[in-house]
Amino acid sequence: MDPKILTLYVIPDRRQGAPRSILEQTAAALEGGATAIQLRDKELSARELTDLASRMTEMCRKKGAKLFVNDRLDVALAAGADGCHLGQSDLPLAAARKLAPRPFLLGRSARTVEQARVALEEGADYLGVGAVYPTGTKDDASVIGVEGLKAVVEFTSLPVVAIGGIGSSSVREVMATGASGVAVVSAVVGTPDPTASAVELLKLMIKP
Amino acid sequence: MDPKILTLYVIPDRRQGAPRSILEQTAAALEGGATAIQLRDKELSARELTDLASRMTEMCRKKGAKLFVNDRLDVALAAGADGCHLGQSDLPLAAARKLAPRPFLLGRSARTVEQARVALEEGADYLGVGAVYPTGTKDDASVIGVEGLKAVVEFTSLPVVAIGGIGSSSVREVMATGASGVAVVSAVVGTPDPTASAVELLKLMIKP
Repeated sequence: MDPKILTLYVIPDRRQGAPRSILEQTAAALEGGATAIQLRDKELSARELTDLASRMTEMCRKKGAKLFVNDRLDVALAAGADGCHLGQSDLPLAAARKLAPRPFLLGRSARTVEQARVALEEGADYLGVGAVYPTGTKDDASVIGVEGLKAVVEFTSLPVVAIGGIGSSSVREVMATGASGVAVVSAVVGTPDPTASAVELLKLMIKP
Repeated sequence: MDPKILTLYVIPDRRQGAPRSILEQTAAALEGGATAIQLRDKELSARELTDLASRMTEMCRKKGAKLFVNDRLDVALAAGADGCHLGQSDLPLAAARKLAPRPFLLGRSARTVEQARVALEEGADYLGVGAVYPTGTKDDASVIGVEGLKAVVEFTSLPVVAIGGIGSSSVREVMATGASGVAVVSAVVGTPDPTASAVELLKLMIKP
């Protein structure tokens, strides 16, 4: 896959992004130049998720961005999304790859070089690597630090999107590891102006 | 599909079936002659569900029974299960049918003649119709009664499995509507001897 897709990967969140809806957060992030959006929500039914993913896919398409659905490969496929992101406790990747051949995109979370190796072998298109910094988003997020991120980036041939507590003060340090981009929640949707925050992050990522 | 698959459709439940595990409940129900098992669990990760569904599919196959996964079509497909059961708030049925062509089996919950009509049109293989009686299993189960069940059975050309509060005292009345079978939770897995309970239900279903 084109690693540029991963440049600014925004994950709307009904709590951190409140009072904006997931759709409003998506629109604001895309307006600011987000290259990918991930739909991640554990409260909606599959029917509601599918409807939402369909609308978000359309919004992304108009802006040349990609829509990924977290965990639910069936929802991603039913909605015509561009891809699905699978954590280590989500669907077995090899089985997912069989159900969803390329050009459908499959992302996999990987905290270690070993997980990265297996993900490549099983057919991942990109890796989500982190948590780089402590984050309030996931209770169980284990911090691997910039060094941990760098270890995976240097090992793998897959494009890597770094995730976990990344913001304007750390994005340069993260990109210096060779990661293709950053995945963010609060640094975009948790700010008063998500569009401006996305624009600022992208500016910081352009090498001086 | 062969409507005999629906004759005794057992849904293991980690609470109502405690202290037996879902696998133990499955084994006991199959031993008693269950013709179908549905894996329904909202607490396990997709990875755990897929592992469990794979094992249950194998157990069912050895007994000539079918394994359905509730809600998660991706898990059902990844595990090589026989089918998936989709409630009205689960995946849109038409999209699911496209992702999972026959002979993979798709069940759909239907409380009304109108829902039954749409389900047939969208590609369902069978209908789950209920709740026939009040039940503690689903808080939001709306009771349609034996009359409501009969209305759907008489309308649709699809095989119907009746669900909701059905037990040994009501199974004859339910089967008299023309339903192909009964789906049960507590009447099998909630009893001291699930195997014996399954055997008894099946005996009651044989016309005298």
